[in-house]
Amino acid sequence: MSDVNTISKQAQDQKRRDAQKAKVNEAVAKADIERGLLLVITGNGKGKSTAGFGNITRALGHYQQVAVVQFVKGNLACGERNLLSRLGVPFHTMNTGFSWDSKDPSNDKLAAQQAWAQAKLWLADPHYDVILLDELTYMITWGFIELDDVLNTLANRPTEMSVIITGRAAHRDLKDLADTVSEVRPEKHAFQQGLKARIGIDW
Amino acid sequence: MSDVNTISKQAQDQKRRDAQKAKVNEAVAKADIERGLLLVITGNGKGKSTAGFGNITRALGHYQQVAVVQFVKGNLACGERNLLSRLGVPFHTMNTGFSWDSKDPSNDKLAAQQAWAQAKLWLADPHYDVILLDELTYMITWGFIELDDVLNTLANRPTEMSVIITGRAAHRDLKDLADTVSEVRPEKHAFQQGLKARIGIDW
Repeated sequence: MSDVNTISKQAQDQKRRDAQKAKVNEAVAKADIERGLLLVITGNGKGKSTAGFGNITRALGHYQQVAVVQFVKGNLACGERNLLSRLGVPFHTMNTGFSWDSKDPSNDKLAAQQAWAQAKLWLADPHYDVILLDELTYMITWGFIELDDVLNTLANRPTEMSVIITGRAAHRDLKDLADTVSEVRPEKHAFQQGLKARIGIDW
Repeated sequence: MSDVNTISKQAQDQKRRDAQKAKVNEAVAKADIERGLLLVITGNGKGKSTAGFGNITRALGHYQQVAVVQFVKGNLACGERNLLSRLGVPFHTMNTGFSWDSKDPSNDKLAAQQAWAQAKLWLADPHYDVILLDELTYMITWGFIELDDVLNTLANRPTEMSVIITGRAAHRDLKDLADTVSEVRPEKHAFQQGLKARIGIDW
């Protein structure tokens, strides 16, 4: 491509980006509804739970009231929980020693329902500004908790409360209810290059 | 679909998922290289910086040494910085009052180069376990810092140091160098529904 064409291409790209930005700025300026948000962070890539916990850190930095329910994680080590629970963040963590290869699904189901019961208490309490339901999506997929119960509880939560839900394969109805949905796609992952999971990065 | 077909479909799905899981488990088991990781979190969706900060929270929960360089953010409010800097995390934040619509690019470029100079000091110091370079990608895109300098600095960092880079449109060479690349895609965003950005969620 000649220099002239390159410059023309760049100018066109810039024009397209400017137009895009103007459109977004206009939509942002028009956005004037103020209430708590429902965020769903799904997809197969790395960074869903970390984004959820980053949001808890963010809210805590503004002295907001937050709480975390960890589905799936069981009694695995978790750096975020270490730090945030030291700072007084209420945590409920499913404590069956749950794993992906569990041999006792009925016990897991009970633990999931207990975690959801705790989540429902917090989701009804206007004291909380932001609640993280980490890896909730699997509980619905596996039939451990009822989708309708989740949708109703979320829809009827206090108006000012924001909720973040993480996990793969979020149910379509959950995404429909959400205000923001991000899908984290794995372009590549360290383990594919033979790299071992690492403290501080992977847990 | 008849019940029999439904069950057969479910069994097939389960078989496919099991095969997929077995493949991943095998790759994970084979992954035995132990060194710091380079993570790139890119794409247009919401959750990139929050994932980066979540990772800092995670590492801090294991009492690791961490540091954060914030490109772009300027002197905007930032809940994560409030909390993490209270906890003693070293921060360098570009302080030009930078905005996307800045009218003084030469001043921004200087601020970017100062931030990168601080980043290079930390990236050479084996004292640090995890360093977040928040929104670095734009500095490369806009020509404020040199891609080659970034790539060389990252490639020559201490072996045990992990680095997380966030921002849209990460350069291909940066993604090539990375161990893990996640792309955050926006399925939908609250502002499109007329919802105003919110403290504790959006900043």
